[in-house]
Amino acid sequence: MLADALISLLGPEKVSTAQDILETHSIDKWHASNLPEAVVFAESTEDVAKTLQYANEHNIPVTTRGAGVGYVGGCVPTRGGIALSVMRMNKILDLAPMDGVAVVQPGVITGELQAAAREIGWYYPPDPASLKECSIGGNIATNAGGPRCLKYGVTRSYVLGLEVVLADGRVMRTGGRNHKNKTGFDLVGLMTGSEGLLGVVTEATLRIIPHPPTRSMVSATFDTFADAARAVQEILGGGILPSALEITDGFTLEAARNYLGRDALPAGDAHLIVELDGQVESVAREIQQLADRVRELGAVGLNIAQSDEECEAVWQLRRGFSYSLRATGLTKLNEDIVVPRSKLVELVAFAREIEADTGIAVACFGHAGDGNIHTNLMVDNYDDPEEKVKADAAVDQLFRWVIANGGAITGEHGVGIAKRQWFADAVGETSYAVHKQLKAALDPNGILNPDKVL
Amino acid sequence: MLADALISLLGPEKVSTAQDILETHSIDKWHASNLPEAVVFAESTEDVAKTLQYANEHNIPVTTRGAGVGYVGGCVPTRGGIALSVMRMNKILDLAPMDGVAVVQPGVITGELQAAAREIGWYYPPDPASLKECSIGGNIATNAGGPRCLKYGVTRSYVLGLEVVLADGRVMRTGGRNHKNKTGFDLVGLMTGSEGLLGVVTEATLRIIPHPPTRSMVSATFDTFADAARAVQEILGGGILPSALEITDGFTLEAARNYLGRDALPAGDAHLIVELDGQVESVAREIQQLADRVRELGAVGLNIAQSDEECEAVWQLRRGFSYSLRATGLTKLNEDIVVPRSKLVELVAFAREIEADTGIAVACFGHAGDGNIHTNLMVDNYDDPEEKVKADAAVDQLFRWVIANGGAITGEHGVGIAKRQWFADAVGETSYAVHKQLKAALDPNGILNPDKVL
Repeated sequence: MLADALISLLGPEKVSTAQDILETHSIDKWHASNLPEAVVFAESTEDVAKTLQYANEHNIPVTTRGAGVGYVGGCVPTRGGIALSVMRMNKILDLAPMDGVAVVQPGVITGELQAAAREIGWYYPPDPASLKECSIGGNIATNAGGPRCLKYGVTRSYVLGLEVVLADGRVMRTGGRNHKNKTGFDLVGLMTGSEGLLGVVTEATLRIIPHPPTRSMVSATFDTFADAARAVQEILGGGILPSALEITDGFTLEAARNYLGRDALPAGDAHLIVELDGQVESVAREIQQLADRVRELGAVGLNIAQSDEECEAVWQLRRGFSYSLRATGLTKLNEDIVVPRSKLVELVAFAREIEADTGIAVACFGHAGDGNIHTNLMVDNYDDPEEKVKADAAVDQLFRWVIANGGAITGEHGVGIAKRQWFADAVGETSYAVHKQLKAALDPNGILNPDKVL
Repeated sequence: MLADALISLLGPEKVSTAQDILETHSIDKWHASNLPEAVVFAESTEDVAKTLQYANEHNIPVTTRGAGVGYVGGCVPTRGGIALSVMRMNKILDLAPMDGVAVVQPGVITGELQAAAREIGWYYPPDPASLKECSIGGNIATNAGGPRCLKYGVTRSYVLGLEVVLADGRVMRTGGRNHKNKTGFDLVGLMTGSEGLLGVVTEATLRIIPHPPTRSMVSATFDTFADAARAVQEILGGGILPSALEITDGFTLEAARNYLGRDALPAGDAHLIVELDGQVESVAREIQQLADRVRELGAVGLNIAQSDEECEAVWQLRRGFSYSLRATGLTKLNEDIVVPRSKLVELVAFAREIEADTGIAVACFGHAGDGNIHTNLMVDNYDDPEEKVKADAAVDQLFRWVIANGGAITGEHGVGIAKRQWFADAVGETSYAVHKQLKAALDPNGILNPDKVL
């Protein structure tokens, strides 16, 4: 019946109840799943507005989704209802370097926008690891980050304007093509990262910047994680703001050597990537100076990558770390925690404690400059209920340590379902109450993405 | 009686009703004024919480103020009540390069924080022109910008965490020392730029970054504003992201030549500043290449400034433009409008139309890279009611053009009282309604900074 109503509202080609479609819209990359009653494939803002207005009047839950590659169950339709896909709204509407903006629909794949901007010499910096498959709408919903955010900032720093359909179907435009705008509250910011709880983004005006002509990279190994973490502090303290600054621990390196070959990486129990970008001659000289500095700081193995191609090869290797962990055959519980940068070493020491306590290996790697370390609990058999209980307890232990140490339980993936149980503790009582007040103000019937975050 | 109640709540040394104190707390740098009934000098978060709790219970308006140097009447206590000063809360609580953060109270002067960070080799980039007298609390309330925001972003990009006292006296902490944080809605962003309508900031954790070792600058004149605006586009299109990119029109230059001497500036009807920062040798070479490029683009006069000192001298000259306009003896109505960058030339052409229509000269200068141009209507005798009507009509004409052309009515100063009458048109009906909903959710009694923005 819901489907019938939606069909008469939108037409039959935009609504599906086919079992395979319901199934592909019941999940993301996390392990939760639940079938929606119907899937709506919106093709326009008007489609989204009609859908929400109807859903709001009839108290039907709506779970919006982009490419569905999130890590926290954020687009799982836990209460059935409507799965609202924006993936047919996938056009780059405008690419205007004279204004420094790109105007896109939410279903545009992030990597495609980057490529389109690159072709005309411009740059859309946010670079989540999934950029070849994730959508701008999903990036906005989670305020996605990536390695380059150290220098360039997260998705929020690039959203200048939004068109958002509110829970009751009203269409709101906020911000626009201006690079500065102090007109009222920061509704662009409120919507960005709101994980589908406050509205549905139907168009985004994004900031693009001049593409730095080149980049280069130092890739180095160190005897210990503490040595690599110290190098991070010294590099930043020396007046250098790298475009990326990535650290990897010994467990991950060992898995990489097993999977990619012993020669893929020089010896050492920690790995550091430092990427610089800018003008060609400047970067050529700065990368040599940086390499000298990294050697002084105790690197035991060191390579320099110059040009886009060589840098991409290192990033390819780096992405291989993730596959190497998967190739261990263990289940990888990837927690994208953040700690104040001075606590990197303590975090990894605590990971070793968890290992000792529980027998579950912990692989740490990630964005050292931001303190955003993907902490992967490597679980032998997560389907075994006993193992699962143990693993979940270890995750709980990790999150409690993070909260107690002034860290954040998520730096990039969002809260969704996965981290909901720690959310109230993480933000504290007053902030939690304010979240509830804002949600009630903008979605009084609670139809938008129920069971997530709050 | 209000004062008595406040004294028994806070103690006599934190409350004043002295006429001179009431008067200094009745204004900012705009022309509106109204006396508060009492001034509270909060010394702690607890003082602020007690004050707001009391005010909320008794429906007393509270107008929070920092250094009081705003341009839109934002801290004028239009309904009397309490003027709540946070200027005694003026400590830098922590400066921690290992975490890349500074923790400050709201009364800290922006320039003092910059100097303290600079001393240890670190950098707090936001640089409003008033940085020697404005406070961090005011910067957060207005999401202050400045020339460097082109490369480094506005205040919002540097606020990692806030302690905020809500209208009812509850104390909320949100965000913290982490450089990434996707835990819930962006309450830090919602509070930043909310002009005192949603809460009172009592502590801020700010991001600091490695200080670029040097900077240099090209300062050039062009025959026409259009030539200079074209140079802006070509510089950005060539893969360069300057740390500042400032443009000035002929009226302003003429005033500067009259005030500072004919030799202060080379010939030409438009002026451009392009600043680069980074590593010493890189900047030394890049600035020469940039100078060559700027000459190719038609510069008729050109100077290169190297080192901090030489650059500061150019900025000093640039600040002199503002004084030169004041020295004309005319009243300067400074409107910090923003246009999409491609419309810089159209904006200045429209300014010339206003001049022709009204006889009021219009001086344009500002942040060309952002499209954020301070458009100054130079009024002969603003105290003359007839002149005032004419000038106000010209401002109205300007704002209507800005709104019709997809611009923003304020890029840095905020809405306050000054731009309130255009606010609803500027943001549109739905956004306006959402502003009201959010305000009602967080300040149901409407005690916080009434008569501003909404």
